[in-house]
Amino acid sequence: MRPQEIISIKRDGGELSDGQIREFIVGVCDSAWADYQIAALLMAMFTRGLNERESEALVREMLHSGEILDFSGIATPKADKHSTGGVGDKTSLIIAPVVAACGVAVPMISGRGLGHTGGTLDKLESIPGYNVRLSKDEFRSTVEKCGFAMAGQTAEIAPADKKLYALRDATATVPYIPLIVASIMSKKLAEGLDALVLDVKTGTGAFMQGLEDAKRLADAMVRTAEKFGVKAEAIVSDHSEPLGQYVGNAVEVYECIKILRGEAEPQMAQTSELSIELSARMLAMTGVCKDVEEAKNIIAEKIANGEALDKFKRNCEIQGGDVSVFDQPEKLLDTGVRKFEIECENDGFVASVDGLAIGNVIVEIGGGRMLAHDKIDNAIGFRCNLKTGDKVSKGQGIGTVFCRDRAQFESVSEKLRNAFTIADEPVQKPELIMAVIK
Amino acid sequence: MRPQEIISIKRDGGELSDGQIREFIVGVCDSAWADYQIAALLMAMFTRGLNERESEALVREMLHSGEILDFSGIATPKADKHSTGGVGDKTSLIIAPVVAACGVAVPMISGRGLGHTGGTLDKLESIPGYNVRLSKDEFRSTVEKCGFAMAGQTAEIAPADKKLYALRDATATVPYIPLIVASIMSKKLAEGLDALVLDVKTGTGAFMQGLEDAKRLADAMVRTAEKFGVKAEAIVSDHSEPLGQYVGNAVEVYECIKILRGEAEPQMAQTSELSIELSARMLAMTGVCKDVEEAKNIIAEKIANGEALDKFKRNCEIQGGDVSVFDQPEKLLDTGVRKFEIECENDGFVASVDGLAIGNVIVEIGGGRMLAHDKIDNAIGFRCNLKTGDKVSKGQGIGTVFCRDRAQFESVSEKLRNAFTIADEPVQKPELIMAVIK
Repeated sequence: MRPQEIISIKRDGGELSDGQIREFIVGVCDSAWADYQIAALLMAMFTRGLNERESEALVREMLHSGEILDFSGIATPKADKHSTGGVGDKTSLIIAPVVAACGVAVPMISGRGLGHTGGTLDKLESIPGYNVRLSKDEFRSTVEKCGFAMAGQTAEIAPADKKLYALRDATATVPYIPLIVASIMSKKLAEGLDALVLDVKTGTGAFMQGLEDAKRLADAMVRTAEKFGVKAEAIVSDHSEPLGQYVGNAVEVYECIKILRGEAEPQMAQTSELSIELSARMLAMTGVCKDVEEAKNIIAEKIANGEALDKFKRNCEIQGGDVSVFDQPEKLLDTGVRKFEIECENDGFVASVDGLAIGNVIVEIGGGRMLAHDKIDNAIGFRCNLKTGDKVSKGQGIGTVFCRDRAQFESVSEKLRNAFTIADEPVQKPELIMAVIK
Repeated sequence: MRPQEIISIKRDGGELSDGQIREFIVGVCDSAWADYQIAALLMAMFTRGLNERESEALVREMLHSGEILDFSGIATPKADKHSTGGVGDKTSLIIAPVVAACGVAVPMISGRGLGHTGGTLDKLESIPGYNVRLSKDEFRSTVEKCGFAMAGQTAEIAPADKKLYALRDATATVPYIPLIVASIMSKKLAEGLDALVLDVKTGTGAFMQGLEDAKRLADAMVRTAEKFGVKAEAIVSDHSEPLGQYVGNAVEVYECIKILRGEAEPQMAQTSELSIELSARMLAMTGVCKDVEEAKNIIAEKIANGEALDKFKRNCEIQGGDVSVFDQPEKLLDTGVRKFEIECENDGFVASVDGLAIGNVIVEIGGGRMLAHDKIDNAIGFRCNLKTGDKVSKGQGIGTVFCRDRAQFESVSEKLRNAFTIADEPVQKPELIMAVIK
């Protein structure tokens, strides 16, 4: 069928057959479809909708556009986590070693940061020497040796998504649930998992700002995973402020190591809570723990006895990183950057912290990227000294900027101060876990 | 505004401001918008709709993406005709000289054939030497000298449409009335006209197959022209069979010259009727005749006294063509081709003649083109010896193929025979003029 014929079916609100969706994805991969034809069908899908069968076919064809990893040689169950992304979201770096320490393998394929949200790969690269470019074989052998691996997507996995995502980004066809689900699940299902836990963020700083939309996305992903034989659960988590204490690259790794060392500061509580919640569900779903409660106890033990930290250290060694950061995490804060305090101008209570604004400032001073090929300064970051609900006095430091010089600090200090809204009346701390979708 | 922001407004069913539509068209012309972004917005426009203000803004911006011809030096009124195109539709070649002979200038910018419908430029080029590639100045001076000129679109006229049309064709976004209207009117309004008559075809062989759709398109074009200060009327004409007697290039010019010589054969009646109807409306709208009836009388006179034919001869001379075809039109049939008769296999009445099938056969044996750069054999053609409603006997010639050799004929004879449906019972001749929209 000519691309025009397939496009016109969806254009007119019709249903695409499984075969037509296959032709589309094959055409995307072999370039038989021009970019403008792909864009036209994506927009027709967005505006006319895809039903459940079409959505499932899209996931299946995108998944099968590439290879599915084979971990049949690994005896333990395999699980992974996916997050819709947020400012200060660093849970992957805790979940992977924790879950691996509890006996579940985590073959974690991650991404880089783009725009105001960071990426796991960039964070890992702030550990000197850490190599995220693993071949398929290196990836598998790393999982075998230490229970988890963290690496970038290879060309073999869901190649259709790479092209589709770039076009969706350029043509305003990103925020449509079946397309989001197909993009995420075609990659995650290629990891050969037994279980997948999803962290869908909601709130002012999140991609899905409304709670209902977030629940719908969570539900669609859980149902899709289960159709493909992968157990899945989703958490809808609050993202009305940055997660935890730090935003940046090296500084976020610092936060994770502190948590794994059992030295978490109070502002790191959200990072801990969310990481443990997600890890526990991975352990319960794969059956290595009988339920989430038991899993949480075991996780606490693995952190307390240092086994989770050791897992990360071992992984770091295998992936070529400098393991000294696990014993001296301060090294990640003292990377030659200068630190400047943002002072509060009023007495009161922190009513909100605008994560989007903070994320954008980090990009602006070099800690993130606007374009895929931009270079990143890993040392750049921000520490939230105060979180929503905290009491604050005039002149108190509400946050600390990690940057290269005073000019950089001065160019962003006003934006950072404005990211904190101070109220006169006491403010309730937000609930982190807003919903669980099974 | 970034293209994504403009696209997302229409994607979500919002209204685009005049400024946003201007940004879009400017972006189309200066390539600030990528083809896939243009395609996405076209699809969003198609599926979400454009209201009247947006549609008008689109016409205006596309019109002003190029130059508007200036005929202020010509004292007579200026008028033109546009047809949505059909098999055997050759009325331009009669209308231009007839209307010019009656004192109204016709600056006619035409196209080439693509697919099953022919193009005026290809037809004209079957007159040896006739040059359709006129510069803006040559075009204007030809209109000044003989009252009309027929040439191809220059790069200066509505450049946005050229790019948009190619993308619409590839992305299944052609058949949406506001986009069709913008494409047609942005070119026609650039001709600097006082009046425009539109021939919207309907029926099995037409682009707008349904009568109601054809009326809606006609109405939208008439109202658009008037908003831009150009008087307009539209005819909705039947196109359930090829128009008139001949289909092809040289053979269609032959039919026109025969009509202008007052030597029309009965099968040419539709061509005559439609050409005169459209011409008369151009003359009445521009006020050179008091009404359509008076105009038809004057047209009859100008054909009878040879003035219309002389106009064409004079034009042909100026545009470099061999004027001997006006005195010996048979030359256009005797171009070294061979003629083969299609015989009827039953007694009965012609119930229908499938113009689309005939148009496709002409393309197949070289008389038309599938791709824009294909070469055309001008001598290829088909004569309908019988029209819908005619009585026919077994063995009677229902049509004549003008082609290069017997093999060519044999490859298409069955398709041509099948294009004629023969019924046992008498069949009513179709009404040609189905509606007039003012």
